[in-house]
Amino acid sequence: MPTRRELANVLRVLAMDAVQQANSGHPGAPMGMADIAEVLWRDFLKHNPANPRWWDRDRFILSNGHACMLLYALLHLTGYPVSMDEIRNFRQLGCRLAGHPEHNPDIGIETTSGPLGQGLANSVGFALAEKMLAAQFNRPELPIVDHYTYVFMGDGCLMEGVSHEACSLAGTLELGKLIGFYDNNGISIDGRVEGWFADDTPKRFEAYGWHVQSVDGMDDEAVANATRAAQAETQRPSLICCKTVIGWGAPNKAGTKEAHGEALGVQEVAAARQRLGWTAPPFVVPEPLRAAWNHEQAGRAAEARWQELFARYRRAYPQLAAEFERRMQSQLPADWQATAQAALAAARAVAGPQATRKSSRVALDVMAPRLPELFGGSADLTASNESWHAGARALTPEDATGDYLHYGVREFGMTAAMSGLALHGGFIPYGGTFLTFSDYARNAVRMAALMQQRVLLLYSHDSIGLGEDGPTHQPIEHLNSLRLIPNLTLWRPADALETAVAWCEAIEHTSGPSALVLTRQGVPQLPRDAAAQALIRCGGYVLADCTGAPECVVIATGSEVSIALQAVRDAQGRGRRVRLVSMPCTQRFDAQEPAYRDAVLPPGLSKRLAVEAGSTGLWSRYVGLRGRVIGIDHYGASGKAPELFEKFGFTAEHVRAVIDELITAA
Amino acid sequence: MPTRRELANVLRVLAMDAVQQANSGHPGAPMGMADIAEVLWRDFLKHNPANPRWWDRDRFILSNGHACMLLYALLHLTGYPVSMDEIRNFRQLGCRLAGHPEHNPDIGIETTSGPLGQGLANSVGFALAEKMLAAQFNRPELPIVDHYTYVFMGDGCLMEGVSHEACSLAGTLELGKLIGFYDNNGISIDGRVEGWFADDTPKRFEAYGWHVQSVDGMDDEAVANATRAAQAETQRPSLICCKTVIGWGAPNKAGTKEAHGEALGVQEVAAARQRLGWTAPPFVVPEPLRAAWNHEQAGRAAEARWQELFARYRRAYPQLAAEFERRMQSQLPADWQATAQAALAAARAVAGPQATRKSSRVALDVMAPRLPELFGGSADLTASNESWHAGARALTPEDATGDYLHYGVREFGMTAAMSGLALHGGFIPYGGTFLTFSDYARNAVRMAALMQQRVLLLYSHDSIGLGEDGPTHQPIEHLNSLRLIPNLTLWRPADALETAVAWCEAIEHTSGPSALVLTRQGVPQLPRDAAAQALIRCGGYVLADCTGAPECVVIATGSEVSIALQAVRDAQGRGRRVRLVSMPCTQRFDAQEPAYRDAVLPPGLSKRLAVEAGSTGLWSRYVGLRGRVIGIDHYGASGKAPELFEKFGFTAEHVRAVIDELITAA
Repeated sequence: MPTRRELANVLRVLAMDAVQQANSGHPGAPMGMADIAEVLWRDFLKHNPANPRWWDRDRFILSNGHACMLLYALLHLTGYPVSMDEIRNFRQLGCRLAGHPEHNPDIGIETTSGPLGQGLANSVGFALAEKMLAAQFNRPELPIVDHYTYVFMGDGCLMEGVSHEACSLAGTLELGKLIGFYDNNGISIDGRVEGWFADDTPKRFEAYGWHVQSVDGMDDEAVANATRAAQAETQRPSLICCKTVIGWGAPNKAGTKEAHGEALGVQEVAAARQRLGWTAPPFVVPEPLRAAWNHEQAGRAAEARWQELFARYRRAYPQLAAEFERRMQSQLPADWQATAQAALAAARAVAGPQATRKSSRVALDVMAPRLPELFGGSADLTASNESWHAGARALTPEDATGDYLHYGVREFGMTAAMSGLALHGGFIPYGGTFLTFSDYARNAVRMAALMQQRVLLLYSHDSIGLGEDGPTHQPIEHLNSLRLIPNLTLWRPADALETAVAWCEAIEHTSGPSALVLTRQGVPQLPRDAAAQALIRCGGYVLADCTGAPECVVIATGSEVSIALQAVRDAQGRGRRVRLVSMPCTQRFDAQEPAYRDAVLPPGLSKRLAVEAGSTGLWSRYVGLRGRVIGIDHYGASGKAPELFEKFGFTAEHVRAVIDELITAA
Repeated sequence: MPTRRELANVLRVLAMDAVQQANSGHPGAPMGMADIAEVLWRDFLKHNPANPRWWDRDRFILSNGHACMLLYALLHLTGYPVSMDEIRNFRQLGCRLAGHPEHNPDIGIETTSGPLGQGLANSVGFALAEKMLAAQFNRPELPIVDHYTYVFMGDGCLMEGVSHEACSLAGTLELGKLIGFYDNNGISIDGRVEGWFADDTPKRFEAYGWHVQSVDGMDDEAVANATRAAQAETQRPSLICCKTVIGWGAPNKAGTKEAHGEALGVQEVAAARQRLGWTAPPFVVPEPLRAAWNHEQAGRAAEARWQELFARYRRAYPQLAAEFERRMQSQLPADWQATAQAALAAARAVAGPQATRKSSRVALDVMAPRLPELFGGSADLTASNESWHAGARALTPEDATGDYLHYGVREFGMTAAMSGLALHGGFIPYGGTFLTFSDYARNAVRMAALMQQRVLLLYSHDSIGLGEDGPTHQPIEHLNSLRLIPNLTLWRPADALETAVAWCEAIEHTSGPSALVLTRQGVPQLPRDAAAQALIRCGGYVLADCTGAPECVVIATGSEVSIALQAVRDAQGRGRRVRLVSMPCTQRFDAQEPAYRDAVLPPGLSKRLAVEAGSTGLWSRYVGLRGRVIGIDHYGASGKAPELFEKFGFTAEHVRAVIDELITAA
């Protein structure tokens, strides 16, 4: 039987060889964390390589994603469908083993990581999902949801602000089954961290209410004991600070920044082989080591035990079991269509002016009780975002059956945790903040989009229309800048019905996050016939048409649609052939067939005007060089909303004037 | 003589009355922090209301910017040019007293705050600037730089991740003259914070190496003693955790979230008046109180003492004194033009292909030694960003004469601290990270832009061209999304000369931040005559023209310019009249006279093609509905850079093909 160190060295050698082969990558962290990984994966991790999607597997998150060769080696060795050829092809075009881990539930990659700190924040979402599902579904003697979330992190993760947000929240929520391993190797890209990272990290995490241990990360016994102690601590999340040596095994580069982010070089790789007593050629794992690593049989047995448990559960609680399966399979309830129709009906019943944030609440009030997977929250703006709903119950550390989380003022941590919730399965998370503060969470929004996760972002206070809070709180560039994020669908509804449609579309859209961008101020309900109502979901549609071919088309979104409508009606009343298009979702409109798009925006028509209380930039895409945009390309001001709209040109009068200019221009 | 409580109550009453008058705003924090503010401003703060720009004043930062009525009341009462009429007009359009503080050096507002946590991070920059200027300029017995930075913060600031980044850095750097007051009122917008913010904050800050005290924030003596102790601690930054009651004085709403963000209401205001024993009508401050608050005479005396000190300094060190004045006045050195020319010459001397991040380093190597106000750094990517320069010396806690800071993996904290450095005066800060991770700092970039501060952002690894690190690290939407931020100037240079021009323009641009976006991979040096060289600074110029009127114009930026050049030459060789425009800075180009723009991009010419390895969105603005864009609107991939450029269509062949399609199209 190989020694544990020999088993860990398999990880070290595969990492250094694959990075050398690619001539790019990060050998140091895998070599430093190999012993920890060996202990965790061989003695503790509950998983089944033959079924990477097993619902009750432990989740393993590599927040220091640059250490991905560690993960890839673990997946390969334990028996996931990751071949040695793939490892040889590490970081090459088309290979699933990318330069940083990319979420792939078929081969055991739980999340995309690399942007530092975010894997850690994801892991808080994973652990929260486990705790909530356990509270909702477990029954005496039938703990069908009962797994750990393990997360590896480096110095970089802990320097990032998002680590504060996520770990403070995890402590408050008492996520006792979250266990972190901190690779305390004292080295970051610029060198020895002491010059820029002097935190007493154990003390910091104790301040968050975590259970903290410090061990020698190269001492397997110490790591195993600490892991057991962490498991035994069921209330507080655990951090195990592991003192390690980056690049351990490389005789000349170990303990230096040179081991971090580039191939060790042929000579150093050879020297490391000698130091580690490794005689096999690259990409060959001697059979005894391979056998000791393989987890296929044990994994199948582990899942079989759980399947047996779940079968008993199903017999005892058939409805609950079916509901659990539905939730974990991301299937909407059977009556979802009726729910959606009810939400639309509630919107149609709204008569007077209403802020779309309030309209969003109207939709939520209908949907939430009938959609138990919906899990809400806000970054401390619950009332402002209207993110609470009639039946909502706040989650507490003691009672995890609630469906609403007060995330605190933690936009970034909230958004990354929502990805963790979505990735775990069982939840459709939504979370609110002001549109401006989407900035704070921007890279987490991007990661949700990159991973194509159903995360719902509720962004209220969507323009200068928020009024007196002033320029720091008034979004200008945010609408367009969010629209630029690939795979993110942004809805900016104009009234209650468009808001309800946006909610329904967001719920049904399973391959990426959706942002619902909502007004603070009231907006009138727009008139539309049944045909127009049915077209809202196309992202852009004719709201008010003229008789005959239009000589000018106006495109507006959100709170500017009703303003544009006044102007268009006025122009029509003066005999102008002007069409108004409401475009709540540009991306959805862009995805329509060309014939539809051309029917809405006639290709030959160059007299086009876009109206949106945000930056003009992207609208050229719809109005072209000869069209016009009424937007705002500078910061706003503190003042009453109607005065700001007046001052910055978002009035029916101004729109009408520009329509006239366009029409009378050559 | 009024009591201290009576003096503090002036702040309380002005805050609640102004918010009531505006019927919008945040009375609670000013009422809770009034006693702390009274102690700090009347007993400690060194300032001269008659000269808010006095260089050695203490800096006062209100990180919980929603508490702005506290600041406005303090400014009014101590004698800054802030009238009672302005306070009556709080939050109204055109009033300088906006809903959140807006940087205004004429009336004593040191920074724009409101986005939580960022004022705190700014304050780290302010305190760092003080420490560095003191190290550089003070001489025995002549401490011409010797002031404190005081910062008020709330629960929200401390929940935000940026507080972790900034305060961890402040501890490491031993910013002993940074003194924070934490308004520990236990309430945030969603209610009592214990459900979402359970940190042991004193312990957390001790973990950062801060000196921490906890006091009753309504006890003036305790606050005064703690402030003295904080001043006496010269090595560690200080945090004074002040237990307060939000809305103190309002009998029914004190201690509740209802006191946070809305007017108290006429009845509660009346009840608070009674509770506080306040008999004067709104906006009237009884004379004894006004007199006790007024700091004009004391402030003039304080500055006079410093002026006397500075006069002695000037006699002893005339050159140093002149240099200090130059630095604090934001004037470039007298030989700046020669420096700029030397940087351009160094760029022209670059012969072969070179990554523009390396070209940036070439410029830095020339400029930095001749521009002592230049203060560099990187968020732990020094070598990757090429942000180090030949003469750079890293700052250490013990020696603050260095000109380079290893910020650690703290993009947000770095960027907000850079604004603090710029706002303090005496420095032109630049800081590097990967372009993708500008996301982490996005709202701090926005704040630098909103405040129009000269902050230089060095963003390397600017496209899929970074290669194997993969989609998490490859910017797609970032170029366009940064271009959308008002007042931010983004340069994406194509070669060494464009890089040097961008550096010079960024240094000379005093009314906003500039981003220099740089390649990881090598790019060839482009041929241009003297006329073209001189036009780089216009942001867009004809790099390669055809004979006769162009039938097609190609616009490219950065690493795609040389690719487009090959294609354009090929087309020209085949008799096509194609022009190539290099556009390193769209905003600068947009700011040119129409005649220049039309000369570069002939208005009648609709056959236009833009080429940029980023999202296509904004380019419609230049190519219109009939033009084409070669860009990338989806995430990248892990692989070798040349293979990625090939795969995603950034090749001369593809550009040539699209040129041909455009020209032959109807």
